Amino acid sequence: IIYVVTPTYERPHQRAELTRLSQTLLLVPALHWILVEDSLKRSPLVADLLAQSGLHYTHLNVQTPPPMKLKEGEPNWLKPRGVEQRNEALRWLRVNQSPMDRGVVYFADDDNTYSVNIFKEMRHTQKVSVWPVGLVGGLRYEGPLVDKGRVVGFHTAWKTHRPFPIDMAGFAVSLTLLLMHPEARFDPNAERGFLESSLLGQLVSVEDLEPRADNCTKIWVWHTRTEKPKLKQEEALEKLGRGSDPNVLV
Amino acid sequence: IIYVVTPTYERPHQRAELTRLSQTLLLVPALHWILVEDSLKRSPLVADLLAQSGLHYTHLNVQTPPPMKLKEGEPNWLKPRGVEQRNEALRWLRVNQSPMDRGVVYFADDDNTYSVNIFKEMRHTQKVSVWPVGLVGGLRYEGPLVDKGRVVGFHTAWKTHRPFPIDMAGFAVSLTLLLMHPEARFDPNAERGFLESSLLGQLVSVEDLEPRADNCTKIWVWHTRTEKPKLKQEEALEKLGRGSDPNVLV
Ligand SMILES: O=c1ccn([C@@H]2O[C@H](COP(=O)(O)OP(=O)(O)O)[C@@H](O)[C@H]2O)c(=O)[nH]1
Ligand SMILES: O=c1ccn([C@@H]2O[C@H](COP(=O)(O)OP(=O)(O)O)[C@@H](O)[C@H]2O)c(=O)[nH]1
Ligand SMILES: [Mn+2]
Ligand SMILES: [Mn+2]
Repeated sequence: IIYVVTPTYERPHQRAELTRLSQTLLLVPALHWILVEDSLKRSPLVADLLAQSGLHYTHLNVQTPPPMKLKEGEPNWLKPRGVEQRNEALRWLRVNQSPMDRGVVYFADDDNTYSVNIFKEMRHTQKVSVWPVGLVGGLRYEGPLVDKGRVVGFHTAWKTHRPFPIDMAGFAVSLTLLLMHPEARFDPNAERGFLESSLLGQLVSVEDLEPRADNCTKIWVWHTRTEKPKLKQEEALEKLGRGSDPNVLV
Repeated sequence: IIYVVTPTYERPHQRAELTRLSQTLLLVPALHWILVEDSLKRSPLVADLLAQSGLHYTHLNVQTPPPMKLKEGEPNWLKPRGVEQRNEALRWLRVNQSPMDRGVVYFADDDNTYSVNIFKEMRHTQKVSVWPVGLVGGLRYEGPLVDKGRVVGFHTAWKTHRPFPIDMAGFAVSLTLLLMHPEARFDPNAERGFLESSLLGQLVSVEDLEPRADNCTKIWVWHTRTEKPKLKQEEALEKLGRGSDPNVLV
């Protein structure tokens, strides 16, 4: 089973993002979606979307502590995003899965673009699979450099001293390995860019990484980001008492 | 058959956009994708993506005349986008389909978000089906107002005098109706915001519109837009002779 862990938070385009991601996941066999809301409560919007998705899923929530939470208008790189949510999913997996269970865990943000091919590649992960990610780190792609089937370095231009200069979307971990290291988690206080390394450093060394996607030459996941929708007219109409019907779920 | 007409153009995230759109379309039965590149030639990138998509498709191309084409840095609303491409698809349909063929034509931009539900709604179009579109026109949604199963007005805040204040993603047209009006097409010189009206005005009046999506109360398509990826480090690395491998397709 592939456990796909997705942190998510309320915003005007949340339902759009989760709709298209859920439809992608529907094309993948033997998949379990762990959707973790960054909120005090699980929302009906997300609960309904999951119920109608046709997927196997678990719906969790945990709020990012307010001092760690990105504020309206703050540049998005200032604080880590989705960290508590991914750790909550790790906690859930350790409580609910036993060492006998076979599986692979993938951390899939709600706004990236995933080809179904990437799920085929990660399915046979022994310890940690890796592959390149498109449109990240200021580059066309960031990814492992492979020689004779081994990772021998990384193509990256940003904080090149990171132990694992790999985007969240660029690796998957075997469930067994995670259960063998019950303390391994993402460090919410990791330096910017070091979040992935904070987990991976507890699980493997670079030599252990398993290159996928045709020796890391195929881009099957992209770090896309969605524009914040402009809702100026909405405020204007609301003042006139003619705003969009609040009963219509967007 | 639903004919989905998608204009597309080369940019760093084109393959990402077309990948996720193609995967959505794969969930829809009896669908034919007409993908029209804004280019002088059909590109191998798009041809390969279509060949591997598992979809029924037609691959066309037509270049937007240079004076009409949006230039780097120009605000995107300055010029219409995808007009010649949609008209090229109409031309192809008229040459290749006969009045006996039943079908529905939907104009689906490559960056929007589509729920599979919207395709179920449009399948039974007699003349022109309509429904609301999320996150467009500065509002949570724009859409038809329905009374007793008829369209009696529109919820919109922008150029409210448009004859059909409906986004491109908010309607589908029966193929028969298009074949009955062999001259009907999008007007590349239409005033900003009047492109949809320029086609629909040749085919129907507002009273003929068929409201779908639970009397236009369900949002099953969103006018999302993808951020332009930042590729600054790529230029820096290229100067050092260490740019991303050009053989890796992003
Ligand atoms: O306050 C926040 C901001 C983001 N996220 C989630 O964390 C992940 C990464 O956030 P984002 O995509 O904004 O970051 P990026 O890496 O694109 O800058 C996404 O799944 C978001 O939905 C979250 O749970 N809470
Ligand atoms: O020079 C261009 C710009 C856009 N498009 C296509 O036209 C449609 C609408 O463009 P876009 O999404 O940029 O416009 P929006 O309505 O979001 O402003 C999309 O399918 C694009 O791929 C095109 O063919 N040529
Ligand atoms: Mn993101
Ligand atoms: Mn668009």
